[in-house]
Amino acid sequence: MNKTFALKGDICFSKALTELEFYENSYLICENGRVAGIYRELPEKYAGIEVFDYTDKLICPGMSDIHLHAPQYAYRGLGMDLELLDWLDTITFPQESRYADIEYAKKAYDVFVDDIKHSATSRAVVFATIHRQATEYLMEAFDREGMAGYIGKVNMDRNSPDIYREETAESAEETARWLDDVTGRYASVHPIITPRFVPSCTDGLMKRLGEIAAERHLPVQSHLSENLSEVDWVHELAPDSKGYADAYDRFGLFGTSGKTVMAHCIHMRDDEIELMKERGVFVAHSPQSNENLRSGIAPMRKFLNRGVKCGLASDVAGGSTINMFKAVTDSIQVSKLRWRLVDDTERALTFPEAFFLATKGGGEFFGKVGSFEDGYEFDALIIDDSSARTVLELNIPQRLERIMYLGHAGSIIAKWVAGHKLF
Amino acid sequence: MNKTFALKGDICFSKALTELEFYENSYLICENGRVAGIYRELPEKYAGIEVFDYTDKLICPGMSDIHLHAPQYAYRGLGMDLELLDWLDTITFPQESRYADIEYAKKAYDVFVDDIKHSATSRAVVFATIHRQATEYLMEAFDREGMAGYIGKVNMDRNSPDIYREETAESAEETARWLDDVTGRYASVHPIITPRFVPSCTDGLMKRLGEIAAERHLPVQSHLSENLSEVDWVHELAPDSKGYADAYDRFGLFGTSGKTVMAHCIHMRDDEIELMKERGVFVAHSPQSNENLRSGIAPMRKFLNRGVKCGLASDVAGGSTINMFKAVTDSIQVSKLRWRLVDDTERALTFPEAFFLATKGGGEFFGKVGSFEDGYEFDALIIDDSSARTVLELNIPQRLERIMYLGHAGSIIAKWVAGHKLF
Repeated sequence: MNKTFALKGDICFSKALTELEFYENSYLICENGRVAGIYRELPEKYAGIEVFDYTDKLICPGMSDIHLHAPQYAYRGLGMDLELLDWLDTITFPQESRYADIEYAKKAYDVFVDDIKHSATSRAVVFATIHRQATEYLMEAFDREGMAGYIGKVNMDRNSPDIYREETAESAEETARWLDDVTGRYASVHPIITPRFVPSCTDGLMKRLGEIAAERHLPVQSHLSENLSEVDWVHELAPDSKGYADAYDRFGLFGTSGKTVMAHCIHMRDDEIELMKERGVFVAHSPQSNENLRSGIAPMRKFLNRGVKCGLASDVAGGSTINMFKAVTDSIQVSKLRWRLVDDTERALTFPEAFFLATKGGGEFFGKVGSFEDGYEFDALIIDDSSARTVLELNIPQRLERIMYLGHAGSIIAKWVAGHKLF
Repeated sequence: MNKTFALKGDICFSKALTELEFYENSYLICENGRVAGIYRELPEKYAGIEVFDYTDKLICPGMSDIHLHAPQYAYRGLGMDLELLDWLDTITFPQESRYADIEYAKKAYDVFVDDIKHSATSRAVVFATIHRQATEYLMEAFDREGMAGYIGKVNMDRNSPDIYREETAESAEETARWLDDVTGRYASVHPIITPRFVPSCTDGLMKRLGEIAAERHLPVQSHLSENLSEVDWVHELAPDSKGYADAYDRFGLFGTSGKTVMAHCIHMRDDEIELMKERGVFVAHSPQSNENLRSGIAPMRKFLNRGVKCGLASDVAGGSTINMFKAVTDSIQVSKLRWRLVDDTERALTFPEAFFLATKGGGEFFGKVGSFEDGYEFDALIIDDSSARTVLELNIPQRLERIMYLGHAGSIIAKWVAGHKLF
């Protein structure tokens, strides 16, 4: 990790929400796994360091996918004619139950890990399944391939078929055992407490998970206010809570034990948005999934205006692809439809804003991640946009905007995470 | 054209709107440029014909992109933070004006034609620019590369900058001269009358175009009810018409001279929908463009229920990509948002329906196109979906759905149009 090196090329990243920084044909320095400056000419003190020459290629921060389901990758892009609750019962629960078989899990997770390694994603917050052994294999594979992030063994003790449901005590015990196994075991992959969502977890289980999270100061991930039928169901299931957010908060699972991220956050009350801001709870905005499962469009402009922390997510397999370029443009496109169809006081997201969310916005969940400002962890993508031919001369932000809209996943030709080259 | 041959592989296509037909490991016969049957084993009468062996690959009909702007391909995916009328003034009109320079036009159109040749599109209905010479070059290049469709020299005599506007008489004369030049010149590329949209054409020009279309029995393409500000403007500009559709119809430009296609059709009155049905006017549904330019979501379910002819379109560069796989899934995704946010009586599109629209639906504009039923023109794509790895066993419709959602443009490894192999 003491290695110092430079990438040379056309550099682009976000400092602030609304504007892109860019440096043509410049050197991006990595020292001890962190960004140590950008220079037009290599300073004398760096003479002789290794330089990876990507002249004419784009260099931008790796992206953070702050909500996705690794076991669902096997059936991405399938069964998209169903709404959330039907999709869970018909496809998701039966498919996720297969990860009880560790040999099956290994085969499926190997494909997922190899594909995400070659994608725009450098860090991720990941749901596994309820199975401890398969979850540990996924963490090991993620770490082995150089990816960084949080991976959670899922907890579920109600409202799913017998083949894919735990007993309350068993769920808590397996979670503790899993945490004992994996805590501190990997350099960049860490456990995260993962109640699936309120309908899948009894109050008893939620209480135990809240205690475990508090004792061990652990981060938390779950789902919040994705779909109207789901929200109604939560109100029935948790009549004593003040609402969906409170159904987590009353058990210490809403930003009090550690960093917390909630996927979707579409149908939100104002006081719930305020609570997210107070607690620093992240919104994982998953625009493609919210289209596929007919959930709606999250009020991203409102979250940004109120200072809620936000990032983007693929939500595979509610979203069909792990390609975060698509999450960037999808987030802009659905925000335009929200402006047109729901509330024309909520200005659409711009390209610089969406790019910020995919990099520095979601990156904050992992610390100083998602920018090329000094001291940020060195996560970098090299993008070859030469196959997107045009007769026009384009500047760096235009090239970046264009390659995201074209969504060429194959255009990523090299990637670093925390100073390590993945390919 | 008398050649008989077969493609062997996993065949999938639409007969009806709601269901996919599929044949595993079978032979699709081409005779004289048309489909002549599908067989599990090659019948004796075809013994010895050339067989292209695509075992384990998907074979589906080529797609019809029934609305796109070829000159806008150069700036696809750029400037997407603007709404329609601002986007036209700031980017589109200045960029399209450059096609006055035939050398520039050749360079830009060569990129477009080469890229669309390698895309899922086999047939297209295309806007060129106001320039006769460049339009003729585009038609020639389209034909030379084996693509089929309609290409129109655009007419505009008001509300655009001097550098990109014609005089009324000049516009009509150039159109007649262009038609004399190109009519009957190409096997599969034909001219189409192309008033840009009502705001760009005076009544005098519309009248002349209607006369030309009627005299020569020509097809017509234009834009209809895309954006709310545009619709308001049309009502101001055409106070004597009964509405936007009538602003074309009163000049004989709405399905009376020949086949007619109208792009977008988002903000439509019931009597206008009825008129489209009566006249057989096609809707070119352009979901991605309608998101990018904040236009809204077209009522596709309503059109289908009422029996209006419909197809899908990329609308490059309102849409950023010519990839019709994306048009398929975008059409499903926005229909789900329309169901959720606008009108929950309008059931979302299913995958088989969207696939139908992209193939047989839009294909009807070109005749018997977009299916593998006997007698249909032989337009076929070979899709290699092996890079979309999974541990699951999938059937043919599932593989087709998945590859569309993943949008891998690079998965098309061979293509036939009207019995000719393009690559």
